[in-house]
Amino acid sequence: MPSTKPRPLAPLYEQIRQLIVAALAAGEWRPGDALPSEAALAERFGASPGTVRRALDELTAEHLVERRQGSGTFVSTHAAPRQQFRFLRLVADDAAGSFTRELLGCRRMRATAEVARALGLRTAEPVIEVRRLLHRRDRPVVLDELWLPERHFEGLTADVIRNHPGALYALFEARFGVHMVRAEEKLRALAAAPEAARLLQVPEGEPLLSVERLAYTYGDRPVELRRGLYHTSADHYRNELN
Amino acid sequence: MPSTKPRPLAPLYEQIRQLIVAALAAGEWRPGDALPSEAALAERFGASPGTVRRALDELTAEHLVERRQGSGTFVSTHAAPRQQFRFLRLVADDAAGSFTRELLGCRRMRATAEVARALGLRTAEPVIEVRRLLHRRDRPVVLDELWLPERHFEGLTADVIRNHPGALYALFEARFGVHMVRAEEKLRALAAAPEAARLLQVPEGEPLLSVERLAYTYGDRPVELRRGLYHTSADHYRNELN
Repeated sequence: MPSTKPRPLAPLYEQIRQLIVAALAAGEWRPGDALPSEAALAERFGASPGTVRRALDELTAEHLVERRQGSGTFVSTHAAPRQQFRFLRLVADDAAGSFTRELLGCRRMRATAEVARALGLRTAEPVIEVRRLLHRRDRPVVLDELWLPERHFEGLTADVIRNHPGALYALFEARFGVHMVRAEEKLRALAAAPEAARLLQVPEGEPLLSVERLAYTYGDRPVELRRGLYHTSADHYRNELN
Repeated sequence: MPSTKPRPLAPLYEQIRQLIVAALAAGEWRPGDALPSEAALAERFGASPGTVRRALDELTAEHLVERRQGSGTFVSTHAAPRQQFRFLRLVADDAAGSFTRELLGCRRMRATAEVARALGLRTAEPVIEVRRLLHRRDRPVVLDELWLPERHFEGLTADVIRNHPGALYALFEARFGVHMVRAEEKLRALAAAPEAARLLQVPEGEPLLSVERLAYTYGDRPVELRRGLYHTSADHYRNELN
């Protein structure tokens, strides 16, 4: 909840950080683009290069931008291969094998009360529902269902997804200009219901890891609700606490 | 795997960060202690206050130290109430209710091959095994089993644990000088085996969230292996991806 107390003026590097985020949210620099040099940013914001560097340090720590040795600072993109593991934490116990994706369906529907609440929509506002399976070594391990506000993803169809070879988040930023910045997940163990059991090829009642995600774009706007069911007999969800 | 290539000299703030971590590991400043002022640290390390501040920024981001407005920088302590939630991610769905702890047992044993491998011990080296339940609203929700190298926890007994009111990690740093800095967790869904079902008061086969943790102290030394079984019917494991 936003505070109503007046806040003391943020340090200069934080103000510049916020201005850069606003420019990212406005699409001035798109995922994968190079940012202007530190000197150019310093001139634009009327700050010292050190202050700009500090703001870029913060943005790097938040994974909004990334530095590449010798070539400058770039807007983070989900198209970069290692970005995938930021948002897909399921790894094979033997650390082997990558995922293949199988689209089960993509349809337009009215938001349920729950989807609307999570995404900050009016009830019955149109959303797009996507269902898919992820397979590893030809066995299904993840059943994902996700809901997206149509107003941000107009024109998203099964064909659009099938024609895109990479991760969904890479498609979302490339085609719809929606870059996922962070996500909150709630994990629990559930017994497989009949349909999930059939799709994941496990017995009914098999323990599954349920991962409910709310993903946010720039400016902390929720733009995806996702429910994943992970079959964890030979895979696990990896987390780091610090 | 450590790289064998010679590494370029780290930036000065990073060198100072490493020196401060070494002093923490050596126990020069203990959890809860105030660090010397930035000016005093600058003099000690022959660096500018700005460089020291940058090193402290990094350590703050890693949660090794914390800044308190107007009173300086302190070594992080697990005795601080909000530190608990860094390492215990299970929250109630309705966000209510705190945990009470019930010790089931504390015994000295020889490390199994698996425990020895995880903790970097010789097989059969002595470890201390602790088993406990966490209850919320008078219902058991977590069954924890943990193994600690005896050489770091000499004198840890059931009485020591029972006589300590707070979190185990606060006891470990206060009594044994072992401060947990970070942890890696592997999560999966499992069916409750008979003993876990009895202790957690659930039917056999009930889906449980299994959380296997390896916790590290300063200098990336693993000092605790822990297996938790979480009953997630009214609680969930909260995670943030960014």
